[in-house]
Amino acid sequence: MARFRIELSYEGTVYDGWQSQPSGNTIQDKLEAAVKKITGETLRFIGAGRTDSGVHALAQVAHFDSDSSIPPQDLLGALNSVLPRDIVIRELEAVAGDFHALKLSKEKHYDYFIYNSGIHSPFWSRFSWHKRSPLNIGAMREACEMFVGEHDFSSFCATGSSVANKVRIIKNASVFEKNENLKCITITGTGFLRHMVRIIAGTLVNVGQGKISPREISDIIAARDRTKAGPTAPAKGLFLVRICY
Amino acid sequence: MARFRIELSYEGTVYDGWQSQPSGNTIQDKLEAAVKKITGETLRFIGAGRTDSGVHALAQVAHFDSDSSIPPQDLLGALNSVLPRDIVIRELEAVAGDFHALKLSKEKHYDYFIYNSGIHSPFWSRFSWHKRSPLNIGAMREACEMFVGEHDFSSFCATGSSVANKVRIIKNASVFEKNENLKCITITGTGFLRHMVRIIAGTLVNVGQGKISPREISDIIAARDRTKAGPTAPAKGLFLVRICY
Repeated sequence: MARFRIELSYEGTVYDGWQSQPSGNTIQDKLEAAVKKITGETLRFIGAGRTDSGVHALAQVAHFDSDSSIPPQDLLGALNSVLPRDIVIRELEAVAGDFHALKLSKEKHYDYFIYNSGIHSPFWSRFSWHKRSPLNIGAMREACEMFVGEHDFSSFCATGSSVANKVRIIKNASVFEKNENLKCITITGTGFLRHMVRIIAGTLVNVGQGKISPREISDIIAARDRTKAGPTAPAKGLFLVRICY
Repeated sequence: MARFRIELSYEGTVYDGWQSQPSGNTIQDKLEAAVKKITGETLRFIGAGRTDSGVHALAQVAHFDSDSSIPPQDLLGALNSVLPRDIVIRELEAVAGDFHALKLSKEKHYDYFIYNSGIHSPFWSRFSWHKRSPLNIGAMREACEMFVGEHDFSSFCATGSSVANKVRIIKNASVFEKNENLKCITITGTGFLRHMVRIIAGTLVNVGQGKISPREISDIIAARDRTKAGPTAPAKGLFLVRICY
C-alpha cells in the first residue's frame, strides 16, 4: 500500500462539486470510478478543498492509498484516458504515508472572475459573473484591505454551516483588471468557511456598485450576521487556483 | 426598410457552423429565429465568413434588412435576451443600404490554437488542438513565411470544393507562444478556401513535428494537390478573429 498525491484541473460546470454524492456526479466520484476502472480498487480520494457545485479548479490537490504497482506516470496517463475531458490530472506522484491533502494544507488561493461589460462574452459565460453596470475598482480594492487579517467571518459563512469556530485568516485580498472587461478578485487564506469567497465577492460587487462603502466592511465583519453581507456570488466565477503545503 | 450591421461572438462547439441548414442548428438560423421572435420578421442574415461546424468567432460580421422601428441599442439587447448564451451580438448599428458583409470584406483574420503539452487543460479542450509532443516553433515560423503572398492554394482546399479560382492572398502568417503550453497560429488574408486555415494549421503542425521541412511548403503549394498537404486540423481550435472592410 502506498500513498499518492495528485494535482488536478477541472471545469466544475456540470458536476455536483468535489465531494462524493449519491448522484455519483462529483469530481471525487469520477476520480474513484476512474481508479476502479484502471486498478480494480475501490478507494477514497481525500481532497484539499471541497469545491461547491459549479466551482472550477486549476490545481486542486488530493491523495489516495493504492496497492497498484503501475508506475505513477503510467497511472496518470491511464486515469486521464478514462476520466471525462473536463477533469484532468496534471501530476501524480508517490508521497510519504503521512502526507494528507486536507490536514496539511497551509494556504489556499482562490480567484473570482467578474465580466464587467454591457455585453457578455460567450467564452466567459461559464467562467465568470456577468455584471453590466461599471464597477468602481478603486473602492473594491479599498474594501479588500478590510478583509485581510484574522477575523470571525460569521457574516461571510453560508447559513446552516455546522462549523463552530468561524475565525479564519485572510492573508491577501485584491482586485486585478485582467483586461478592459474582465476583473479578478484574488484571495489567499489559511482556510475558508462554506461560500466564504463567494459571499466576499458578492459583497465586493456591492461596494463596486456603490451600494455600500468600503469602510462599512468592518461593521459587516463585526456584526457576525450573514444578513449584513452581500449576496453569494454565482459558483461559476470561482476558481480554486493553488493549495500550499 | 433599413440595413443593419452586426458584429457577434460565438462559441461554435454545439452548432453546425454559420450557414443555415435544415437542422436549424446553425448560427445564422439562431439569429434569424431571434429576429422572428422579437420583430416577427422572417429575414436573412448575410455573414462575412461561413465558419465550419465547431469553429468559433470573436467578431463575425453580418448584415440584415429589417422594417423594425426598434432603436438599434434596444434591438441588440432584445436579440441577445433570446439568443442562446453561446451566441452574443456585440454591436448592432444601422448602415447604408449598400453595405454588404460578404462582398465588401477586404481582409479576414483567423487564429488557430494548439495546446502543446503532455497533459491537456480542461479549460482549453473545446478551444484548441491538443498535441502532446513538443513542436518546433522556429521551424513553424519559417514555414509560415512560405505561405505569405499570392498563391494557388489548391493543395490547401477541401476536396470537393466547387470554387474554380483557388488563388488567394495571404498577408501575414505567424506563430505566437501565448504561454508555455498554448501556441497560436495567426493568419490574415483577403479570402480563404474551404478548410484552408485548418489545412495550413495541420501542415504547420507536421512541420513542428519534423515530419516535413519548412522549405517543402513551396513544393506542396506548387503541387496544387490536396494529398500533398497535412491533415485538416480540428475545427475546435479555429477562431474567426476579425473582418476588415
